[in-house]
Amino acid sequence: MTRTRFVLGVDLGGTKISVGAMAADGSRQHALHSLPTLAAEGADAVVERIASMIEAAIAQTMTETGAARDDFLGVGIGSPGPLDREAGLVITTPNLGWHNFPLRDRVSNDVGLRATLDNDANCATLGEWWIGAARGTQNVVGITIGTGIGGGLILDGKLYHGASDAAGEIGHTTIDSTGRRCKCGNYGCLEAYASGPAIADRAREALAGGEDSLLTTMVEGRLEHLMAQHVYEASKKGDDVAREVVRETARFIGTGVANLLNIFNPNVVVLAGGVAQAGEDLFGPLRAEVRRRAFKPAVEACRIVPGELGVAAGVVGAVATYLAQYPAEA
Amino acid sequence: MTRTRFVLGVDLGGTKISVGAMAADGSRQHALHSLPTLAAEGADAVVERIASMIEAAIAQTMTETGAARDDFLGVGIGSPGPLDREAGLVITTPNLGWHNFPLRDRVSNDVGLRATLDNDANCATLGEWWIGAARGTQNVVGITIGTGIGGGLILDGKLYHGASDAAGEIGHTTIDSTGRRCKCGNYGCLEAYASGPAIADRAREALAGGEDSLLTTMVEGRLEHLMAQHVYEASKKGDDVAREVVRETARFIGTGVANLLNIFNPNVVVLAGGVAQAGEDLFGPLRAEVRRRAFKPAVEACRIVPGELGVAAGVVGAVATYLAQYPAEA
Repeated sequence: MTRTRFVLGVDLGGTKISVGAMAADGSRQHALHSLPTLAAEGADAVVERIASMIEAAIAQTMTETGAARDDFLGVGIGSPGPLDREAGLVITTPNLGWHNFPLRDRVSNDVGLRATLDNDANCATLGEWWIGAARGTQNVVGITIGTGIGGGLILDGKLYHGASDAAGEIGHTTIDSTGRRCKCGNYGCLEAYASGPAIADRAREALAGGEDSLLTTMVEGRLEHLMAQHVYEASKKGDDVAREVVRETARFIGTGVANLLNIFNPNVVVLAGGVAQAGEDLFGPLRAEVRRRAFKPAVEACRIVPGELGVAAGVVGAVATYLAQYPAEA
Repeated sequence: MTRTRFVLGVDLGGTKISVGAMAADGSRQHALHSLPTLAAEGADAVVERIASMIEAAIAQTMTETGAARDDFLGVGIGSPGPLDREAGLVITTPNLGWHNFPLRDRVSNDVGLRATLDNDANCATLGEWWIGAARGTQNVVGITIGTGIGGGLILDGKLYHGASDAAGEIGHTTIDSTGRRCKCGNYGCLEAYASGPAIADRAREALAGGEDSLLTTMVEGRLEHLMAQHVYEASKKGDDVAREVVRETARFIGTGVANLLNIFNPNVVVLAGGVAQAGEDLFGPLRAEVRRRAFKPAVEACRIVPGELGVAAGVVGAVATYLAQYPAEA
């Protein structure tokens, strides 16, 4: 019997940190846990928390599998960008308030394992490619829709980073040059229409006329609490206002995805984040919009599917980016 | 002294065919000639013409350089798409009326040399990367603006083709989802605003109010003869209507280029075709629009420059794509 090797994955977000261990062949997952990020306590506290979560995951995995400490090859870290991958720096994160923070080496030193750093959207895409909805393909566009819209690109079987690790900002491509103002300062970005908060904004606008809707009931009339998940849920229950907002969302995302098909001619587009739970209400009209807008050869070559990895996507993806850089020896 | 090897390049267009020979190290160019395509006479006539132009280029190069017939390694062919590169087929060309035509092997058999086939926009981009405005870089977005807007992508130092050779359709990315109708059937494509004919259309619209303009004089009042080149020329001479059309063009192209910076984070964007002659009237406001719309790290990493290869771009690029597939032995 060959020894099983393990890699640890860290998914660092603005509000929570998730850590877990995975068998290096992707077959098994152990000790997946999340804790709040405690961003306000500063970078040292965050690193300390990550390190202790890694130690806990190693200990739990050793107990569950009988593995030895030296069966753990290293740590893949996924973090919001922009990053300097080669130097292992987080250049800046609005949510954490960091600047040029050497996250990779700090974590590596604390736990005594080799570490890698890549951005969260790249990790999510590589995870879906490794053991999720995009496995076995050569060219993948991954789109993660949450508070923002992030993107990851696998081209000719390799994660693509661009000239300075800034590629894949799919949320900040213009779909309407004179359209809605985006947080990035630009106008008409995809993110300004189809991020979670933008979906909630459009639902509030649709309700402003005082129409009857399940949405109002779901948040007990407090529309400021409305979230994209409510819209997907109400749509599934047949609520007219919600269904129209979902159809609109499908058209916006479909326009962005059609652009990406014409540019990349990918084998698969994976949509991850809350949107993956929206089901056919969203994916049906989204695919129809893409067929209307993109070239036929690109449409025929491409599946458009929800992500399969769910809540573990960030951790699985962080492990995948580690293994892309340091493949496990047989 | 080492023997100089040569590769032939064929640039097949809807109206003309250009053929030339180049030293495989990119140092010299020989026997560049163009003839009308004679599309109406059918595919066999076009192949025959290409073959005889290749023979003429070989003969002239042999005379000029003292090379022998077996110093010619092969033929790179650039053609309008869509293509099946691996099979060497032109799948369809609206201008030539071909369907699944085995262009590569027909030319190869006729001249007794190995041949490759790639689309014209990919060729143009690879040519600029080999010995033009993009040499020495890793990530290049090439945009060729003529009757249509084509694109070529060099990513991590390699031409990117996508899942079915359909990548790079940059002209057909939406910049305004409810905007101008495009020939492709979609709305708001970059090509609908900034192709040569679209630039001329917008100039005609600007003149519809009867304003005084050099443009009217240049075509002796026959506005149906107006072309993008007239607009660039009149703008350089200070004509107000033309200058505004050029500024608008810069904003449209700048919006498309900003999207590409956010997606690809390239080292360089090369704009080729007639637009390369437009000078700072166009490139100045275009760069300003990109700075306004794209993320700073992507803007800082990227030069936006006109192509350097001019009329020979297609032939040079065809030679470059041949050599990318079959590198010359030392």
